[in-house]
Amino acid sequence: MSLNYQPRREDVSFLLDRVLGAGPRLAQLAPFAEVDESLQAELFEQAGRFVAEVIAPLNRQGDEIGCRFENGEVRSPPGFPEAYRQLSQNGWLSLTADQADGGQGLPSVFDAVLFEWLSAANHGFTMAPGLLHGAYECIRHHGSAWLREHYLPKIASGEWLATMCLTEAHAGSDLGQVRTRALPQADGSLRVSGSKIFISGGEHDLSDNIVHLVLCRLPDSPPGPKGLSLALVPKWLPGGERNRVHCDRIEEKMGLHGSPTCAMRFDDATGWLVGEAHRGLAAMFVMMNAARLHVALQGIGLLDAAWQKADAYAGERRQMRAPGAAPASRGDQATDLIASHPAVRRILDVQRAWIDGSRLVAYRTALQLDIAKHDADAAVRDRAQRWCALVTPVLKAACTQQAFDGASQCLQVFGGHGYIREWGIEQVVRDARVTMIYEGTNEIQAIDLLVRKVLADGGAGMSALLVELRDELEASRPIDSEVQRRLAQLRYLGTSIVMAAPLSPTLAHEVADDYLRVVMLAMLAWAWARIEHAAPSEERWSVPAAAFRRHVLPEFDMRLAMVKRACEEVTRPAVA
Amino acid sequence: MSLNYQPRREDVSFLLDRVLGAGPRLAQLAPFAEVDESLQAELFEQAGRFVAEVIAPLNRQGDEIGCRFENGEVRSPPGFPEAYRQLSQNGWLSLTADQADGGQGLPSVFDAVLFEWLSAANHGFTMAPGLLHGAYECIRHHGSAWLREHYLPKIASGEWLATMCLTEAHAGSDLGQVRTRALPQADGSLRVSGSKIFISGGEHDLSDNIVHLVLCRLPDSPPGPKGLSLALVPKWLPGGERNRVHCDRIEEKMGLHGSPTCAMRFDDATGWLVGEAHRGLAAMFVMMNAARLHVALQGIGLLDAAWQKADAYAGERRQMRAPGAAPASRGDQATDLIASHPAVRRILDVQRAWIDGSRLVAYRTALQLDIAKHDADAAVRDRAQRWCALVTPVLKAACTQQAFDGASQCLQVFGGHGYIREWGIEQVVRDARVTMIYEGTNEIQAIDLLVRKVLADGGAGMSALLVELRDELEASRPIDSEVQRRLAQLRYLGTSIVMAAPLSPTLAHEVADDYLRVVMLAMLAWAWARIEHAAPSEERWSVPAAAFRRHVLPEFDMRLAMVKRACEEVTRPAVA
Repeated sequence: MSLNYQPRREDVSFLLDRVLGAGPRLAQLAPFAEVDESLQAELFEQAGRFVAEVIAPLNRQGDEIGCRFENGEVRSPPGFPEAYRQLSQNGWLSLTADQADGGQGLPSVFDAVLFEWLSAANHGFTMAPGLLHGAYECIRHHGSAWLREHYLPKIASGEWLATMCLTEAHAGSDLGQVRTRALPQADGSLRVSGSKIFISGGEHDLSDNIVHLVLCRLPDSPPGPKGLSLALVPKWLPGGERNRVHCDRIEEKMGLHGSPTCAMRFDDATGWLVGEAHRGLAAMFVMMNAARLHVALQGIGLLDAAWQKADAYAGERRQMRAPGAAPASRGDQATDLIASHPAVRRILDVQRAWIDGSRLVAYRTALQLDIAKHDADAAVRDRAQRWCALVTPVLKAACTQQAFDGASQCLQVFGGHGYIREWGIEQVVRDARVTMIYEGTNEIQAIDLLVRKVLADGGAGMSALLVELRDELEASRPIDSEVQRRLAQLRYLGTSIVMAAPLSPTLAHEVADDYLRVVMLAMLAWAWARIEHAAPSEERWSVPAAAFRRHVLPEFDMRLAMVKRACEEVTRPAVA
Repeated sequence: MSLNYQPRREDVSFLLDRVLGAGPRLAQLAPFAEVDESLQAELFEQAGRFVAEVIAPLNRQGDEIGCRFENGEVRSPPGFPEAYRQLSQNGWLSLTADQADGGQGLPSVFDAVLFEWLSAANHGFTMAPGLLHGAYECIRHHGSAWLREHYLPKIASGEWLATMCLTEAHAGSDLGQVRTRALPQADGSLRVSGSKIFISGGEHDLSDNIVHLVLCRLPDSPPGPKGLSLALVPKWLPGGERNRVHCDRIEEKMGLHGSPTCAMRFDDATGWLVGEAHRGLAAMFVMMNAARLHVALQGIGLLDAAWQKADAYAGERRQMRAPGAAPASRGDQATDLIASHPAVRRILDVQRAWIDGSRLVAYRTALQLDIAKHDADAAVRDRAQRWCALVTPVLKAACTQQAFDGASQCLQVFGGHGYIREWGIEQVVRDARVTMIYEGTNEIQAIDLLVRKVLADGGAGMSALLVELRDELEASRPIDSEVQRRLAQLRYLGTSIVMAAPLSPTLAHEVADDYLRVVMLAMLAWAWARIEHAAPSEERWSVPAAAFRRHVLPEFDMRLAMVKRACEEVTRPAVA
């Protein structure tokens, strides 16, 4: 049995075409008027083949051999440089970039699918181009004409790779503490000095140049996050001179060995300001939603990779008789496939419920990114922007947690064979763990959602979004009306928090994680109602739908009650 | 800050003495009439020092250097052989063994505490003596006089280590498929042939001899589990000759690198029957409850080790201002300790709720092991035996799952610093994962509990146990009466399953995992009610008690509803 990851194009097309109606919606956006189903089919077919044949087979050695650090240089795992060359030269990295920059001007939603597949096939490898889009958008919107001219096309194509240099040893979630200094020079350049840690791809042998976007402070900057600026610092300067930016070490990690996590030192390195002085965070936030959506898609992809392994193993491994009627697969064997045992069946079906449900929400979010950019109607663009702002942190936190928890469940299907390297399932668990941390820890996502976004407008935005979802369902269908009831509960819950939060300065922080889970579970309920509507009697979809309602959805009521109780405690006087 | 694990004697003594009243209860058992508090205090003091000073410091190199396999031999990580020598020579391994066998005849509950500490300090190292007690009990109860004479004292002291050779490549959870053969010889010995995998400590350099207890089949054996016999096969034969048992490889694993997981080959190896022919499983089951309790204690210990690291880190690391009133620790700093942030506080308090609550249940179970063996009253012994049979699988599954999930939560406290090797927290996550699999996967524990035990007597045994717990609480106290209500709900749930199970051959298997969780959460609720009763206003205990009720206990209602609904679906006619 082969346990290499294989993109499942038919599942993706079903969700995009039959459930979301992505094709017609995209065709309404001016730049995508000529994007049709045959282009999409052709693209996915080629991408699927490339991912399965070139990228997935390198995943194991990425983990076992990993990146090597020698004399300030990083050697990638065998096969990575050649695979990266193909990835960029075949144009896979410039799908969404402007045609003016050499890109293909295709919808974000196509790119989302590609990145999910790449991450599932080889998470470590996919880290390398992971920040390209963000760097592209950042330079495109905030870079000077000179920076755009010299850096944009190379970054659009992936010929040069990019990093985000944010974290310092004492400044992780709290970027306001960043100390890296940037001194303006007479020629308009900056001299950048400081140490950064946890820089993915800070040094490597995949591309000729590496472009660092560095969060730093100008001499006259106010303290805290509002005094941060952003500098572009290339490894090689335009004149061909080596810049004074160096990798001091790469970290030993739990997983993700295919991606070098670098400690970087800037010693009066030459750079240039991107965007306005002291507005570095704003320049970076341009790319935040897209980057966080990518992390959510990593989570979905990794869970799918784990599921595929467990599903294949459970379909070949036999142990004991399963309870109940003899499964057809028994034949004359004394033992049944473990896939027929209820405990294994549950693990597999529940993960599928997460994969497909969160995939639908993630693809819809990618579609909203396209709509937010390109729709002719400003009100429609605003609504799409609101969706992205509210749903992205939910997806980032929930999909990455499920990637880890669910991959661990898939490992359990293998029993002792899962704990050893043999089938590669334990690698998925180790790799997935980091997604709960980077691009803002999951706890930061929850605070972003509730404190910075939902409460910021008194719950109005979230309430409007939930009404939008409600209106897509049909009250006459029992499954839909059940979901509508939960969406209403969630709206009331928002009101409760909005009313209670002013009475307790810590309440919102205390319930943020639970609130995020409630929102995710409501969105999954919406997603499964939509899926079942599109495929009313196909076992492929009805089985995970049933698993969702039976095993996943009950958490909605639990978390709802937990948040409600916390609100009541601050609004009602304590009983003597 | 030091993040090495440190046994907390005062916590353990509080639970044993003030909550469980272990001292007086033990003194009622004839063999322990002279075991008093000062002996206990002296023992824990010495054990705590030994574990902290000798065993814990070797944990990191156990992971990073690990075991090495060369030419059929296994080299332990540096320091392990000397530490093992001290462990056995100082008598720590023979605490509970009979004085007739050179042991110290002390209560199991002391041994439980020692093993929790050893596992927390160094899980890989502690695997080596992990099966000694089981082997000792097995040979003591089932071995011939000759086997007892030659093997029991060496195994009691740990001078020789022991293994359990159960699993074969095609026979994991399904031991009935075991194929290893044993041919009786004229001299009464056996010739054992076959291949075993996943043998912890199958080969090593810690002891002069290794005694394998091998599940095998005699030539005339019936098929399935009732045809299995147990053979004792030593590495070195009594005459000094090397036996034909060999290690072919050690596995590459996710963690637990300090313990060699061996593939063993028996080539006409010499052995002797232990117990009756075809009754090998019965001989092994003697030690099952004790071994599973040990695994539960590993889980508790590992979670404590993770918690200690996260707690220490959160008490030194500063990021951002915490919401709410300025914590005293702020001083004139611009940032607060992350321990003051609600999301981190919740993680730490919830893990403590699990550690202390499950510790109390586990220590009580160890106490029941002593009572089951030594109480003068047969009815009391039976009740204790029932407790062990019902509670042990619950503890094994729930404590090991929490060890992994909770250690991962503790990793989250470190942010990116948790994903790299730096603080050792990611090792705990990797090591802990295996405890969900070995000694019977957690899914097998759930089936053991519900299908083999609760349903076997129509729920009577579990119901009686829950009444016993109820009667230890006082209905006049609000906290206690809330717990009593849940214990009653759990009894009704048992009745519902007993009534529904005959109508569906798969129902019990489908709800087994949820049912086990409900039982565990009810026991934790009982434990925290007892703890609060013993320490009514000590913050050390009231904070995790509150975290338990707020964040952990809500799962009780959720799982209860899930199981109930599944029962209703099979007992009520479907709506047309």
